Amino acid sequence: MAEIRLGLMMHGVTGRMGLNQHLIRSILAIRQQGGVALDNGDRVMPDPILLGRNAEALERLAKTHGISRWSTDVDGALANPDDTVFFDSASTQGRANLLARAMRAGKHVYCEKPVAPTLSAALELVRFAKKCGVKHGVVQDKLFLPGLLKLAMLVKSGFFGRILSVRGEFGYWVFEGDLQPIQRPSWNYRKADGGGIILDMMCHWRYVLDNLFGAVKSVTCLGANHITQRWDEQGRPYPANADDACYATLQLEGGIVAHINSSWCTRVRRDDLVTFHVDGTHGSAVAGLMDCKSQQRVNTPRPVWNPDLRQPMNFFEQWLDVPDTKPAENGFKMQWERFIRHVVANAPYQWDLLEGAKGVQLVECSLQSWLERRWVDVPTLRVESA
Amino acid sequence: MAEIRLGLMMHGVTGRMGLNQHLIRSILAIRQQGGVALDNGDRVMPDPILLGRNAEALERLAKTHGISRWSTDVDGALANPDDTVFFDSASTQGRANLLARAMRAGKHVYCEKPVAPTLSAALELVRFAKKCGVKHGVVQDKLFLPGLLKLAMLVKSGFFGRILSVRGEFGYWVFEGDLQPIQRPSWNYRKADGGGIILDMMCHWRYVLDNLFGAVKSVTCLGANHITQRWDEQGRPYPANADDACYATLQLEGGIVAHINSSWCTRVRRDDLVTFHVDGTHGSAVAGLMDCKSQQRVNTPRPVWNPDLRQPMNFFEQWLDVPDTKPAENGFKMQWERFIRHVVANAPYQWDLLEGAKGVQLVECSLQSWLERRWVDVPTLRVESA
Amino acid sequence: MAEIRLGLMMHGVTGRMGLNQHLIRSILAIRQQGGVALDNGDRVMPDPILLGRNAEALERLAKTHGISRWSTDVDGALANPDDTVFFDSASTQGRANLLARAMRAGKHVYCEKPVAPTLSAALELVRFAKKCGVKHGVVQDKLFLPGLLKLAMLVKSGFFGRILSVRGEFGYWVFEGDLQPIQRPSWNYRKADGGGIILDMMCHWRYVLDNLFGAVKSVTCLGANHITQRWDEQGRPYPANADDACYATLQLEGGIVAHINSSWCTRVRRDDLVTFHVDGTHGSAVAGLMDCKSQQRVNTPRPVWNPDLRQPMNFFEQWLDVPDTKPAENGFKMQWERFIRHVVANAPYQWDLLEGAKGVQLVECSLQSWLERRWVDVPTLRVESA
Amino acid sequence: MAEIRLGLMMHGVTGRMGLNQHLIRSILAIRQQGGVALDNGDRVMPDPILLGRNAEALERLAKTHGISRWSTDVDGALANPDDTVFFDSASTQGRANLLARAMRAGKHVYCEKPVAPTLSAALELVRFAKKCGVKHGVVQDKLFLPGLLKLAMLVKSGFFGRILSVRGEFGYWVFEGDLQPIQRPSWNYRKADGGGIILDMMCHWRYVLDNLFGAVKSVTCLGANHITQRWDEQGRPYPANADDACYATLQLEGGIVAHINSSWCTRVRRDDLVTFHVDGTHGSAVAGLMDCKSQQRVNTPRPVWNPDLRQPMNFFEQWLDVPDTKPAENGFKMQWERFIRHVVANAPYQWDLLEGAKGVQLVECSLQSWLERRWVDVPTLRVESA
Repeated sequence: MAEIRLGLMMHGVTGRMGLNQHLIRSILAIRQQGGVALDNGDRVMPDPILLGRNAEALERLAKTHGISRWSTDVDGALANPDDTVFFDSASTQGRANLLARAMRAGKHVYCEKPVAPTLSAALELVRFAKKCGVKHGVVQDKLFLPGLLKLAMLVKSGFFGRILSVRGEFGYWVFEGDLQPIQRPSWNYRKADGGGIILDMMCHWRYVLDNLFGAVKSVTCLGANHITQRWDEQGRPYPANADDACYATLQLEGGIVAHINSSWCTRVRRDDLVTFHVDGTHGSAVAGLMDCKSQQRVNTPRPVWNPDLRQPMNFFEQWLDVPDTKPAENGFKMQWERFIRHVVANAPYQWDLLEGAKGVQLVECSLQSWLERRWVDVPTLRVESA
Repeated sequence: MAEIRLGLMMHGVTGRMGLNQHLIRSILAIRQQGGVALDNGDRVMPDPILLGRNAEALERLAKTHGISRWSTDVDGALANPDDTVFFDSASTQGRANLLARAMRAGKHVYCEKPVAPTLSAALELVRFAKKCGVKHGVVQDKLFLPGLLKLAMLVKSGFFGRILSVRGEFGYWVFEGDLQPIQRPSWNYRKADGGGIILDMMCHWRYVLDNLFGAVKSVTCLGANHITQRWDEQGRPYPANADDACYATLQLEGGIVAHINSSWCTRVRRDDLVTFHVDGTHGSAVAGLMDCKSQQRVNTPRPVWNPDLRQPMNFFEQWLDVPDTKPAENGFKMQWERFIRHVVANAPYQWDLLEGAKGVQLVECSLQSWLERRWVDVPTLRVESA
Repeated sequence: MAEIRLGLMMHGVTGRMGLNQHLIRSILAIRQQGGVALDNGDRVMPDPILLGRNAEALERLAKTHGISRWSTDVDGALANPDDTVFFDSASTQGRANLLARAMRAGKHVYCEKPVAPTLSAALELVRFAKKCGVKHGVVQDKLFLPGLLKLAMLVKSGFFGRILSVRGEFGYWVFEGDLQPIQRPSWNYRKADGGGIILDMMCHWRYVLDNLFGAVKSVTCLGANHITQRWDEQGRPYPANADDACYATLQLEGGIVAHINSSWCTRVRRDDLVTFHVDGTHGSAVAGLMDCKSQQRVNTPRPVWNPDLRQPMNFFEQWLDVPDTKPAENGFKMQWERFIRHVVANAPYQWDLLEGAKGVQLVECSLQSWLERRWVDVPTLRVESA
Repeated sequence: MAEIRLGLMMHGVTGRMGLNQHLIRSILAIRQQGGVALDNGDRVMPDPILLGRNAEALERLAKTHGISRWSTDVDGALANPDDTVFFDSASTQGRANLLARAMRAGKHVYCEKPVAPTLSAALELVRFAKKCGVKHGVVQDKLFLPGLLKLAMLVKSGFFGRILSVRGEFGYWVFEGDLQPIQRPSWNYRKADGGGIILDMMCHWRYVLDNLFGAVKSVTCLGANHITQRWDEQGRPYPANADDACYATLQLEGGIVAHINSSWCTRVRRDDLVTFHVDGTHGSAVAGLMDCKSQQRVNTPRPVWNPDLRQPMNFFEQWLDVPDTKPAENGFKMQWERFIRHVVANAPYQWDLLEGAKGVQLVECSLQSWLERRWVDVPTLRVESA
């Protein structure tokens, strides 16, 4: 029952997501629980070094969280043979280049999504990873939401019979900034700065659909730029020209139809900020972030359409909770533990750079569909061995 | 304050819809309330003659409801100069021909939808009506649902600011017939018999969208045939080959995006059997058949996305009812009263055969979109004067 | 679409059950609805003659319900070739003899249960019916309770996966008669008069178990005579010496265990006067007379046993109603209609005298088990062709 | 008001039950409250020494809970004349031997159940205890559940009149491990590892029935192995071959019938994880772990059996709570306090090794009944003086 040290470079964890989810709730939580347990009883203890450009921020972060190592010299860090995993959650623009440098130095890589700005760049990374013979992974956190884990359990149990359709509703109202303070950064709403909801969300829906229901085969997507003026972090008005809603219909393997609305311009009247409503021959379910409600075919009611009477049925009371049967764990941490077992003990791991490339692919197909006003097929990605 | 008799031929009211909504709840209810009041204080009393093919059924119906006149001789009835309005709610196949005969005889016509099986036939009827100089109307009942009337009131009040999007969800689970008895006729699910949800519902959505939000400009629609085996009225299995769900996205005048799912294969977890969720810059609303809930921008909450905690907000409690401020009336009767005032007193009336043709047009464009896998524009219909 | 008359002798319908369920709610209700519809469109109209010993009671009954024919001369009635069906719901003692007379006269027979006081007498009847070539049926009303029909639907749908066990709880407190008036006849509690709950109920449980879950293979049954003094209809105390509760465990085909408590000495804390709790690998359900609640395996909670804290779960809220999807019909009438179709149009019919004999068989095996304090096997009944 | 030290050897409290219920909630809680008060005002302060095989676990446990003494040398501990009580909650296999060693060393003994794997071994212990002249006790925790204490209070008050029957329902669904994580150790479901619900639960029902209602005289018991494949702690499938449900009927002194279902394969629709429904001539009650509901004969309703109408009575609303009239105390601790008073001050104490042997006896009789398919008498246990 040995303790194995894993030297881990963490790049770009000064941002909100990197700090909260990856550093604090994943790596530090893993350290606190005594490392990641392997099947043979050994425990892997990650030993992070924080990397970035802002020395001051890095130093403060390291001190706050009791981390001894930090540096602004990425190449120097990559040269250290004792640190074998490189993680990046900095901005999308620099990611492909950084990952390539790390892999060239023989490091295993793990990163936030999107992995690259274009599909061809993403595939280039996949090929390069093969050539370098390193292990690689991409964050696909939504798969580990308790609500979606329950949905996966329902699929596995055969609850749905044959799945017919999936309806996703994502979004909430993002304040314009004139009356209420904004709750998302303003660059999200500027095209030139990499904003836009299609780029932001379609790569999530790709792995959710692929993993839970069936591989995405084709897509039709309409983007919209509903709100054209917003106010930024400093209260200054600016033209909001990125797509802030998209309406996508997808065809999945097995004849399943998925329709997903994503919007920053909608007011929420549903169970959660994102919901997936799945209909199957034998049952239906609606999952949110935490909870999932189901209705089996034997419980399906026979409502009457009567324009003269108020509907006597309450359609929300005809569903049952899929109960919590295990303690909820942070999804980012769960995925980190799997990746660490993959790196150290060769445990199987499926969410690699090719999976990350699929997300980028769906974004590109969606944008093309919007532009060309037609269905766009999503071909199977194949990367020839190096 | 004279009472004006209006001789009214009612064809095909032996069916469920014709009987309940048009005969009992509209014409007989109008008779019971003492006719339709005109602005000048006069009252129009409709005097129906029931027409159809089944003498026995007509006689029984007439007797049951205290109606003195019925006949199986349509031409004989049309020859009676004292009966000036012809109404049809029989099957779609025979409608265009019947209406043409009635108009040729100089009768005003009013009918159920769809007005004709094809757009060109529908337009032919419009032209012929103009030529004959008769008045004409098409049932568009959903506009008069109390829930949609509240929505119309919200639009009129400026509640929404600029409307951004409309999301319609229609449908419920239609039993296959193996475990539970079916609740819709089996021909709905057979292509050869005129079944299919696109044909059934898209003409409704056309007038709802046109009248409430903005003219439909283009459509993309995916049909699906989710359930391929059903059991009929006699419990015999049959192949169900008509589309039983459709997923349509539409662009409306004013940049509004409408997305509408219609399905006979979905289990209901929403406020009503049909709901329209409207988002605007200043507020949002969700309407069902009877009720409508709204949320103004000043009441819009600021939820937090936290994958580690159960959402503390209940998103259903953040909406307010648009209250009933007038007694709910049967929508079919309301439209009948308007058409009668139009016929007798030249009151303005907008839901004419051209409007009916628009419904048929959207069905055709939707089917074309499904077939060609692309957006299809919905051109403005123009009928040159005769 | 002819109307076919069916001459029907009804013997012993002056009793509560015969009058309410068989005469009023079945035969008279069938007459009111215009007879029993056959597949070919014909309608069978039963034309009853009331038979019995009490002329006065028969005459009053006939008059009250507008029935023209009644008689105290059973043999005379049996001699009428126009009356082809003989029904008996008089006392159990005389039944076998009466049925034999009717069958000897070539009549089809239908009767209440138990069909005979002993298994050998019941089997004798089956053989005699074969020999006479008549059709025969036995009332098995509980199968048509809406709650049990829902349970049957669940079984058919595969809801349960593999069924493991069935727990029946039947009964309520039958007042002793000293404080509150009694609600069942006093003979039920006297052995010499044919009382006893094993005789009364085990024949019901036989067809319920056989038809819904699997054939009964063996039984262990403990009878009890809990209350030994009661007061009769006249308020006189009498020794109550019949079994008033029984505790039976049964093994069914397929390894299913059924445990059923029947008691007239229990106070009810459950969903209904009789409930069946079915547990299967994939789901469970609890059915009463009308309603049925289900819980699928994905909705099964994970309660914690904590002797120090009040249980935070409400175990009644974790079940969903199996909704009503068709209008509830009287079960006695449903079975009558099937038997009439069987007699007139040879429609298949399964609840015949052999099925009735099975009920008697289970009663005998249960009594034997009680006496011999051991499991008793319930052999398959076979009746050689005459 | 002296404080008397009681030297207490605690063996095998590293397991979940031993740790939580016996160490933390009993002995440590007693220490925190200042010991056990005797009638004369003195207080007995238990001074534990932890015994076991795993030095590391013992040390950690001792440290965590501020206990100064621990050892892996049982014989050395037994040699200490200052420690006079030996407690064991380790595995069943070693118990009899350990207790014998402790008694031979002159120690009073107290232990978890079952006291021995066979009745003869259990009786041997009783005889040996007599011979050694030590005091002895066996945990019978369910007697101290607040719900059962309320039931005992009802019995004592004469509430039930003459008790007629007791119906116990115990159990819940233990997850198989394929979809949801298991909530009980896998050895429970393997025969070879001492699994099986008859062994686990029948010894509990013995003391509950004996103490609350009347001595068990005979039993018929059917075991079942409903679920034959499960997944273990590591997610590996294994054949589950132990009995996971049992259906037992018992005859008690006084003509009382007890029927108890115990199952790990049932979904719960009742008041609690275990319930006892007691019917008596004058009243009935249903007790769970915490609560108890009662219905007196004057409150007994007169429901009507009507297959055509939904039951208008709610049978759950016709019962009244037996209220909490004293603070709920941990049952294990209550029993410890009584045993300590028995050891130190000769207070009467009834749950001794002979009572423990009775539990083992009922397990043996139940298994024999299952095997031989018949009722098995449960003779009174007599142990001749040494």
